[in-house]
Amino acid sequence: MTTKINLKSKFDKFHEQWSPKIIAEMNDYQFKLVKIKNDFIWHQHEDTDEVFIVVEGKIGIEFEHETIEINEGEMIVVPKGKKHRPFAKKEAKIMLIEPKEVVNTGNIESEITAPSDQWI
Amino acid sequence: MTTKINLKSKFDKFHEQWSPKIIAEMNDYQFKLVKIKNDFIWHQHEDTDEVFIVVEGKIGIEFEHETIEINEGEMIVVPKGKKHRPFAKKEAKIMLIEPKEVVNTGNIESEITAPSDQWI
Repeated sequence: MTTKINLKSKFDKFHEQWSPKIIAEMNDYQFKLVKIKNDFIWHQHEDTDEVFIVVEGKIGIEFEHETIEINEGEMIVVPKGKKHRPFAKKEAKIMLIEPKEVVNTGNIESEITAPSDQWI
Repeated sequence: MTTKINLKSKFDKFHEQWSPKIIAEMNDYQFKLVKIKNDFIWHQHEDTDEVFIVVEGKIGIEFEHETIEINEGEMIVVPKGKKHRPFAKKEAKIMLIEPKEVVNTGNIESEITAPSDQWI
């Protein structure tokens, strides 16, 4: 059976911040919802680009030479290997799209490294 | 340079229906915006899943044994090889995510087959 996915209903199912929840798979890629607030850590993904779509609120992504603000209804592709640090002043709801098994902290092992296999 | 993409601004740049416009690339995948109204044709994509996200309005996708209505803020993964026919009673705005070079009509060559390389 093919089922549709309602983003708002899925966001209502969890409260943790910085802990990506998988909602769908397309070939070898996954769609993950994340609630974020405050600063994440600097990291990069050596093997893949990563897409951020802001579903609710506003986030920033700091790069080495610029900071980009991304609002509701906007998206960005963070290129493979590019160091970045996401942040949000108020809690924001985002969707990530990236290959299966990508770890949230990329090349860094940290206390905020989250499991990469949590479905909701 | 890494730039963000505003979906609404991109939708304002074109009027054609059923003609996917590429707005971003992530590895070998593309993000495409499409305005749709009325009925598309039955088709399938033999080699890939395909994601539909409804950005504005409401669409339906008819499958062989069911029809699913997908509203704003909802998404669906159409599995590889599954016959489907998208439609919308009023014009709706959607985002497709699929591998580069996927053709809108899949296995069918038709007068509504659109170029698969139009960026906006």
